[in-house]
Formats: sequence, C-alpha cells, structure tokens
Amino acid sequence: MPIITLTTDFGEKDHFAGAVKGSIYSELSDVRIVDISHSISPFNISEAAYIILNAYSSFPKGTIHIIGIDSELNLENKHIAIKLDEHYFICANNGIMSMICQEIAPEKIVEINIHDKIESSFPVLDVFVKVACHIARGGTLEVIGKVINTIKPIKNLIPFVNDEQNQIIGSVIYIDNYGNVITNIKQKFFESIQKTRSYEISARNYKFRKIYTKYSEIVNFEIPEEKRNDQGRGLVVFNASGYLEIAVYKSNCATVGSASTLMGLRAMDTVTVTFNKV
Amino acid sequence: MPIITLTTDFGEKDHFAGAVKGSIYSELSDVRIVDISHSISPFNISEAAYIILNAYSSFPKGTIHIIGIDSELNLENKHIAIKLDEHYFICANNGIMSMICQEIAPEKIVEINIHDKIESSFPVLDVFVKVACHIARGGTLEVIGKVINTIKPIKNLIPFVNDEQNQIIGSVIYIDNYGNVITNIKQKFFESIQKTRSYEISARNYKFRKIYTKYSEIVNFEIPEEKRNDQGRGLVVFNASGYLEIAVYKSNCATVGSASTLMGLRAMDTVTVTFNKV
Amino acid sequence: MPIITLTTDFGEKDHFAGAVKGSIYSELSDVRIVDISHSISPFNISEAAYIILNAYSSFPKGTIHIIGIDSELNLENKHIAIKLDEHYFICANNGIMSMICQEIAPEKIVEINIHDKIESSFPVLDVFVKVACHIARGGTLEVIGKVINTIKPIKNLIPFVNDEQNQIIGSVIYIDNYGNVITNIKQKFFESIQKTRSYEISARNYKFRKIYTKYSEIVNFEIPEEKRNDQGRGLVVFNASGYLEIAVYKSNCATVGSASTLMGLRAMDTVTVTFNKV
Repeated sequence: MPIITLTTDFGEKDHFAGAVKGSIYSELSDVRIVDISHSISPFNISEAAYIILNAYSSFPKGTIHIIGIDSELNLENKHIAIKLDEHYFICANNGIMSMICQEIAPEKIVEINIHDKIESSFPVLDVFVKVACHIARGGTLEVIGKVINTIKPIKNLIPFVNDEQNQIIGSVIYIDNYGNVITNIKQKFFESIQKTRSYEISARNYKFRKIYTKYSEIVNFEIPEEKRNDQGRGLVVFNASGYLEIAVYKSNCATVGSASTLMGLRAMDTVTVTFNKV
Repeated sequence: MPIITLTTDFGEKDHFAGAVKGSIYSELSDVRIVDISHSISPFNISEAAYIILNAYSSFPKGTIHIIGIDSELNLENKHIAIKLDEHYFICANNGIMSMICQEIAPEKIVEINIHDKIESSFPVLDVFVKVACHIARGGTLEVIGKVINTIKPIKNLIPFVNDEQNQIIGSVIYIDNYGNVITNIKQKFFESIQKTRSYEISARNYKFRKIYTKYSEIVNFEIPEEKRNDQGRGLVVFNASGYLEIAVYKSNCATVGSASTLMGLRAMDTVTVTFNKV
Repeated sequence: MPIITLTTDFGEKDHFAGAVKGSIYSELSDVRIVDISHSISPFNISEAAYIILNAYSSFPKGTIHIIGIDSELNLENKHIAIKLDEHYFICANNGIMSMICQEIAPEKIVEINIHDKIESSFPVLDVFVKVACHIARGGTLEVIGKVINTIKPIKNLIPFVNDEQNQIIGSVIYIDNYGNVITNIKQKFFESIQKTRSYEISARNYKFRKIYTKYSEIVNFEIPEEKRNDQGRGLVVFNASGYLEIAVYKSNCATVGSASTLMGLRAMDTVTVTFNKV
C-alpha cells in the first residue's frame, strides 16, 4: 500500500488537513496517510525544511511526501515535484526542499503544469493531492510537469567558517517541543573543522566547553537522587539528527524552563564555536 | 473499507480520542478512522458546524462522521444520526448540523434510542461508536433511532440584508489557524445582492473596497522582492470554502500578526457590506 | 492487523512522531498505528500514567502500546516491556506503568536487553519500534529482554485515609482539556470508606456536598433556557474513568473559565473528603 505523508502549517484545529485526507481517500481507497506535522509555524519555510529532512528517511522507499506551506501559486511560487533518495516530495518551490537537496542530489525535479485543468484557491487539496495520487498509482513525474534543474534556495543553511579556520559562526534553525535550541552546525562539519582542538561554544552570554553524548550524561549517578540538581542544567549535545543542540536536562518550557526560555535563544540567533590553539 | 471521521473538542492531550479509536477498532477491525479535528474550542457549536461543513464533502460517499461536541445526553440534548448527501453524521442535536442542513436537505434524521441498553457518561465512546459501527456494517438508521423531521438550529448563520437592499450585515463565524477572519457572507449570496454595484466592506474601523481572487494578488511582482512591503497587509478574499474572509498576507498570529490580532476581530463581531448607488 | 499505539511527549510539531511512524511502517507494512497522545507535558510521568491507563483498555486485546516519555537509557532508567491484561506496553522503567499495575497485575515484565546491538540517542525510534514490531510479528518478550519482577513506582497514587476513617486526603493527578480537575480518589475507594455517611469535599476554599452523576444534572430544565445561569457553575462528579472530578458546567479555559482556572487548582494540590458522623 503506498504511503502519503502530510507536513503543513494548517494547524490542528481547522478543516484543511481533514479535507486533504478525505480528498486522497476519494481518489485512492488503498493508500495509507500519515501525518508528519500540521503545526509548522505559518509560512515558516525553515521549520518545514528541518522537519521534513528529519522525518522522511524513516519512511519506506517510494513514500510520497506532501508539504503544504506557502503553496499559493503565483509568478514567483511555482509548484514542484521531486524524486530524491527514492522518495517523492510535492511542494511549492519556495526553499523547503533546499535543506534536503543540499545533502542528497535530487534524481528528478519537475515544475507541475496541470494547473490549466485545475483552478484552485486550495492548491494542496486540488493540485498536490492529484499529483500524489498520480505517483501512488505508478505515474511518472514527466506526465504532470516539465523537468527543471534547480530549485529556490533558503539562506543560512550552512554555517560560516572564518579564514583562520578557528571559528564556526552558526545559527539557530529550530526550537523543538522541549525548548531545545538546534543549530545548523552538523557533527561531521564540526569535526572536519575541529580536528583535535578543544573549543568553546557561545550563545548570547552562555559558554560551553563540552559536547555530551546524551542528555543524562550530565547526571552524577553516584549522588543520591534527592540530592542532585541536574534538572534545569544547560548542556550541549549532537542531537539524534546530528545537529549541535543547546539543551536543558529534563526541560519543560511551561514549568522548569528550557534552553530557549532560560537562555533567551530564538530562531536565527547566532551560535559561535571558537577552537583553541593546539 | 468504511471510513469513520472524528470531529471533537477533546483536545490533543487527553485520552478521549485515543479511547474512541480503540473502541471502534475493537468493534470493527476493517475500518479506517480519520481525525478531522480534536481542537474545536470546548462546547463551541458554531466552530464545529463550520469545520464539519467544510471537511465532509472531500470524503467519499458513505463516510460516517462522528461529531463529539457537547454530547452529554439530557432532556434538551438528544443524540441524532443524519443521512445527508450520502454521508452519515452522528452527534448531539445541539445545532452542529444546522449549517450543513441549511445547504443540503437531509435525506433522513433519527433520534438515537439505544440508550436503554447503554448507561454512559462518555456517550461518544459508548453510543456514537456503536451507532457508527452499526452503519459501517450496513445497518439502517431506523434500527438505532426513530425518525424525526427537524433539528435544533443555531443563530447568526445567515447575514441580514436591509430593506433598501444596499447593506449586508454579517458576522464573524470562525478565526482560522492563520488568524484569518471568516464571515458568514457567502460569495453566491454576496453576488445576488451586489448585482453590478461597487461596495465598501467594514469591520471595526477597517474598510475594504476590493475582494481579491487570491492572497498573493496584492503583491506587485514588478517591484524587486526586497523592496516590497506586502507581508502584513490586510485584504479581503472569498476563501476556498466560498466565505468572505478578511485576511493578512502571510499572516502569523505569533510573529507578524494576523487579521484577527492586528484588527482586533473576533467570533460574533459584525462585518458590514455597503453597496453604492449605481 | 496488529495495532501499535503511541503515547509521547513529542508534541504536535516536531518530526519525532512522524519518524517513529515511518520507522514502524518500514519494518512492518501490515500494521495499524494509532496516536493516543503526543501532548503529554514534557517528562510528566503522572500525566502519561493517567492517559495510558484510561485509553488502553478500549483497544483490542493484543494491542502494543509504545510510551515515549523520558526514555533516554541510563543507569537508573532502563527500558521495559510488559504484558498485562493481554496488552503489551513498551516504555522506560520510570513509573509510567505503576498506575496500571496497581489495578491489574502484570503477566510478565522484561527489561529490554537488545541495546548492545543498537546505539541510540532516539530510543523510541530505534529500540521501542524494534521491540513493538517483534511483538507484532508474534515474538515473545523473553527474546528481547530478561524477566524482572517489579517496576519503579510513582508517588501519590493512592489517597491517604486518617486513622479515624473519617477523612480521605487525595490529590489532583490531572487537569483535562476542559480544565476539569481530576483527583486520585476513585469511586470504589470513596464508597468503601464512605459507607452511608454524608460528606464534604474541600479543595482550597471551595466546598461541595454532592456528587452528581453527570454534568448536566445541575441544570434545572424547568427554568426557560435564557433564564438559567448554570454555565460556569462548579460541581463534582465521578468521571467516565471513575475518578472524583471537580468540574465546571460547560467550561472552557479560554472563555468562561474552568475548574482549574476559576478555582486555581493544579496538579498535586490537595483535595479532602470529610465524612460526617452518622
């Protein structure tokens, strides 16, 4: 059974996501629809790019991913379908796919051109569903679009390294549900610049000199539980997706606080790594 | 495989929606359950009416819609099942269905009378699931209820037109995830009063003299992107569901603001259309 | 088709829940995944315990429940799988299961020991999914863990009764989507202490002398609807799960208020029942 996933900024309340699911089942009864997220901040391309990048590869090859963010068709915002890593992605050409495409080269990109048949003010429902069902039935991308070679990029994807190669200037790309602050500095990239040097990570006036391998590594299990004060302590890890992340142990934005709330860190803020002389 | 949809005010956190799904799968293993929304504001009949109206018709004929809002059985709040447009709806008789029934006449309405067998303080779980599975197995409405002819209406569904026929006095019926302000003035209705006249739309002290065909129509694509200031501008459209909507281009309630937050518009507020002399 | 449910604190926005679903479908194409909740407050063991207890038994026997709260593996936080009431539960041994196990004795508990093969900073994705799919394929618990006899408890599960047996001192264990305040005092327990005595229930400076059988029982249907003032009135019921609950009729935290917001009641607050002399 083909799988179609949904990643949108529709929110949890409105009828949009429900209508899209109904429309898919009306076209194809034998399909599986999986919600990745409907809670992307409205029109936030970077968030959508981060979420789809980190979710897609867990799905089986052949999965079709509909991404419904800022998808109104206009002169500058065309609809595209991409085949990449044996997955299919259907979205607006607004930068969402540039994060994935930077890691893996697309096999094929088409600009969707079935709009002459479909006049729509709800393109996810009318256009993206049509394209997804076409692919799910085994159709090729060339039938629903014309091949193009490049897609629109987004800014700030790659951290900056200074000429002396002793500083990485990265930025915050995502704040997760635990208030963890995720930067655009990937472990592989970090290590390629670091070599064997020690380092200092700075975000606002907070400094870190160690990257932990997991959150609970900061806990000293030799101290009795009731005497510990680990909860609420800041730390840095490479998260499960491989990104440098500033976290707080057992954080909760609404109660004990989180890296984002306690340190005042937000998307686009600068995070710097300075490497020491050997 | 029959489809059962869920539209409730259970929220995303509690066990209610999960329990209802488990209960359906316990009765029927070969069924597809689709969430439309669990984030209706508690006890908000109008919101539920708007959402189910705009979601249901995307689903295949024969779909069974459970609507769990204000469903505690009492003297004034009976349970009903409705067949309409070849879809089935199961809910309390509290006005939720009056918005759909105003557009399409129900084929059959029954007041559910299986309660003698089921004593319940969670009627969606105990009663609505039973009824839904009965219908999914091909059962008729007459078996689980007695036929009735009318349902409870809700107020403010239809905008008021003055005697001179030069003013429509509508109201806000829904604020969506983008903070867009949706009125009860439908395009067909608007045009039937408008004829060829120009108009002014007023909401609080905001005035609009044009209805756009899509959001990005307000963008002047001849100006370079970095010099535009369209984001955050107010505009009026007929939305994908055909309702007059006051919107803000690329709105986000949490960042740049939205029609609702920037103009201070809320559910039940008045929106007026005044037509000029020809 | 086996059913796997998900109960986590991943939130609605991040890619975590989507990735877990993708991973399950990659292992097993013929399985049904059902979300119970992804909105547990981060690291809140008691909330998770309450939600899984009240959701699980609606599902068919044989259902596999993945609970992803505070699941990072460390010296004090092992992973377990439990067979109980012909359901399977996979989670960290952090107290989540103690609420269910207090009601029904587990048939089997194993401490999962497949970690030598899986190095993971996202154990729900890597470990719990593996275990769930193993069980779904008919595998036994002994293959993926070693049998243990006890699990970690959580505090405040059982209300305190004084020596004179005329007072129950309970506490608030959950606030639901309607702002209803749910205590750890179950109906059976209440009645076993009460015998035939009248009582007074106290929470902060609010007192109640009656437990209603349903919310709308406080409405006097003989008064015309427009003259009633029931909405917003406080009352006590045993909820659908059998817990003593302080509620407000037709509550809504964001508009008319709720038991939690109007009475200032929060998780862990004390609720006392005092029985009068016969």
